[in-house]
Amino acid sequence: MHDNEIFVPEGYRILDVEGVRQLITELPIAGALGGSKDSWRIEEVGDGNLNLVFLVRGTTGGFAVKQALPYVRLVGESWPLPLSRAHFEHSALVHQAEFASGLVPSVQHYDATLSLMIMELLEPHIIMRHGMIAGTIYPRFADDISSFMARTLFNTSPFAMSGHEFKSLVAHFAGNSAMCKITEDVIFTEPYMPCENNRWTRPWLDGWAETIRQDDDLKRAVTRLKRKFMGSTEAMIHGDLHTGSVMLTAEDTRIIDPEFAFMGPMGFDVGAIIANLLLNYFSQIGHERNIGERNDYREWILLTVEKVWTLFRSRFLELWQEKGSGDAYTARIFGDDNHAAALNQEREAWMDHVFVNMMGFAAAKMIRRIVGIAHNIDLESIEDSRIRATAEARALQLARDLMVNSNAYPDIAAITTTARRVNETIPELTG
Amino acid sequence: MHDNEIFVPEGYRILDVEGVRQLITELPIAGALGGSKDSWRIEEVGDGNLNLVFLVRGTTGGFAVKQALPYVRLVGESWPLPLSRAHFEHSALVHQAEFASGLVPSVQHYDATLSLMIMELLEPHIIMRHGMIAGTIYPRFADDISSFMARTLFNTSPFAMSGHEFKSLVAHFAGNSAMCKITEDVIFTEPYMPCENNRWTRPWLDGWAETIRQDDDLKRAVTRLKRKFMGSTEAMIHGDLHTGSVMLTAEDTRIIDPEFAFMGPMGFDVGAIIANLLLNYFSQIGHERNIGERNDYREWILLTVEKVWTLFRSRFLELWQEKGSGDAYTARIFGDDNHAAALNQEREAWMDHVFVNMMGFAAAKMIRRIVGIAHNIDLESIEDSRIRATAEARALQLARDLMVNSNAYPDIAAITTTARRVNETIPELTG
Repeated sequence: MHDNEIFVPEGYRILDVEGVRQLITELPIAGALGGSKDSWRIEEVGDGNLNLVFLVRGTTGGFAVKQALPYVRLVGESWPLPLSRAHFEHSALVHQAEFASGLVPSVQHYDATLSLMIMELLEPHIIMRHGMIAGTIYPRFADDISSFMARTLFNTSPFAMSGHEFKSLVAHFAGNSAMCKITEDVIFTEPYMPCENNRWTRPWLDGWAETIRQDDDLKRAVTRLKRKFMGSTEAMIHGDLHTGSVMLTAEDTRIIDPEFAFMGPMGFDVGAIIANLLLNYFSQIGHERNIGERNDYREWILLTVEKVWTLFRSRFLELWQEKGSGDAYTARIFGDDNHAAALNQEREAWMDHVFVNMMGFAAAKMIRRIVGIAHNIDLESIEDSRIRATAEARALQLARDLMVNSNAYPDIAAITTTARRVNETIPELTG
Repeated sequence: MHDNEIFVPEGYRILDVEGVRQLITELPIAGALGGSKDSWRIEEVGDGNLNLVFLVRGTTGGFAVKQALPYVRLVGESWPLPLSRAHFEHSALVHQAEFASGLVPSVQHYDATLSLMIMELLEPHIIMRHGMIAGTIYPRFADDISSFMARTLFNTSPFAMSGHEFKSLVAHFAGNSAMCKITEDVIFTEPYMPCENNRWTRPWLDGWAETIRQDDDLKRAVTRLKRKFMGSTEAMIHGDLHTGSVMLTAEDTRIIDPEFAFMGPMGFDVGAIIANLLLNYFSQIGHERNIGERNDYREWILLTVEKVWTLFRSRFLELWQEKGSGDAYTARIFGDDNHAAALNQEREAWMDHVFVNMMGFAAAKMIRRIVGIAHNIDLESIEDSRIRATAEARALQLARDLMVNSNAYPDIAAITTTARRVNETIPELTG
């Protein structure tokens, strides 16, 4: 997957702290920082896998500066990755800001040559994943994330757009294929076959990893999901909507990092967020000092899972009612009020379709975080490998069932009920 | 739908017979015609709705010349239509020739400025629709059309292509949105609502047309189909694959006119051809001089319907077996032979998915030809309006059931069996 020649525009250079300082000095936005340029505190904090991230603080304001590198930061130049992802991230942010203003960081400056974006500094926001490991309740989260998803997905779908506008987005984001390819490989392919990228908590999960690689029903299900991911142009999706792409406080929620954005299946975004809530739910056994200490928090997570889906569903339907003037699901063929009930039934059937896809994608997201290349800190930070493996095996058990037996889950409560039950089981471990 | 400004390139001009003569004189291909330029016989024969078509005959060869107009020919300048459709038609033909060589006309010259393409002259081929009205049997047709569809659809799908190649096609053909919009309007929208474009055989079908406009189940079904048409990027489809897009003899079959090509659902092409075979089947009552005279021909049509599907299905699966190295349905996750059966099952499930979509799209194609804007000559040429309405009502009866009760049709034989039964009914007519 690394054989593409990366286009590097004339004038592109990798910035360091002083380079960022100089760049900002030359921009009109510099005034917002306050003080002299030498007083600005700038640090490189990129803890992600792909990019450089600088935090810039002046006396009166701050910025976050994100620059794409022509390779995967985590791996180095041996794994090239197009700089164009900064272009797609920027255009996704612009669309998201249009439809879900206040739920994304504001863009202050975009430099196409440097593949660099300057955004408002989100403070005192923290990455949600870290807050959940600490057991922090976020009272606005379910509301905000469901609004974000309903607004961005509805408004970039042909339920809101003309066919022509919609296909313009399809054409544009089809260019982000290198980022899609990463998802196709690491989420929908590698975990289901022997692959040197894969890792898991050894030796405890050896049996589970082997079972996954031998499971024909699971292979068939993930094959269907991968094709849906590749060929369902439903709406502009964030494409990487896990709890590491959420920065928040008790009062404010922002969705960051849409560099994987493309025109894909709505259920992928909803599934991503629900998968990561569930992974954190199972991880709580590794974060409580005394057994049961986090029981209330566990219930808050499951309640959040339920609210994310039910609020997303109802808000999407509300938007549809208000603004359903796009070329798909043409309201005018249902004409007068005599036929309105039929249109509403069909819209609800669409939400059922998204729900089924959501389950499959959530399952794929959970599995890949446990036996694939990229794990998450919710589970990785559990030091006792046997406890970690117990949490992981429970997540795998739920995920496998969600993907293969999705018919057994008619509603979101069926998922949280099963999660609660699975969390009481003692999974079989190797060794 | 007519409010787009049409881009007309500098240098574009509408050609007449002498303009075509002059153009060819300046091209290296002129030699193939033989004789002096003044001896070439050139006639404008465009009987389609959209374009100019010239046939050019010299002493040793001939060409067909097709030029797009910046409006719908049938309607005039009040209905503008992008010239870019010639660009998409050309690129679709190039792809089709790559994968289904010998089944499309060869392109001799393409002039982007003039939106003009020069192709080989197909002689003595005739438009299949006309041959079927005359009761002509085409022994190669089922073989050829199923090969054409299997090869073009498989090879432009992510079953054969990398995600990157596939998304390049998605980006390219998303530009053909104006042509998609025509289909969205005239096939999936207007027939189901009061619309001045609609017409039907009056008064006989007044009741049928009204029933369609009141049928909530049908409205729901066509709403789902329209969204699939707009948001299923499965493969490069021809987009207008009716029997008027087939020119053939007993020995040779060519598929023409892919100006509606885009990345859409495979079932749309298969459904189009089957719908048009079935429409002709029901029309035979209007073409036989004595009752029963065309019974053998009717059976040939139904046999052809069955062969088109079964051959398409088996050839698609054969291609998949041989060349299934694309990024979707990744064979390598099924690894060794232990899992090959699971992969094959999943591929067969894909064909079932195409079959279900095919039924819905075939039904939509049949309905629109009877109560929508554009009718076809198979039925329109029946002079006795009551007999025509009888044939049309039978087609509507089958189509309505195919679209709404597709579960009742497990295989292609269920469709032909029902067609035969419906063809024996005496439909209720108005007046």
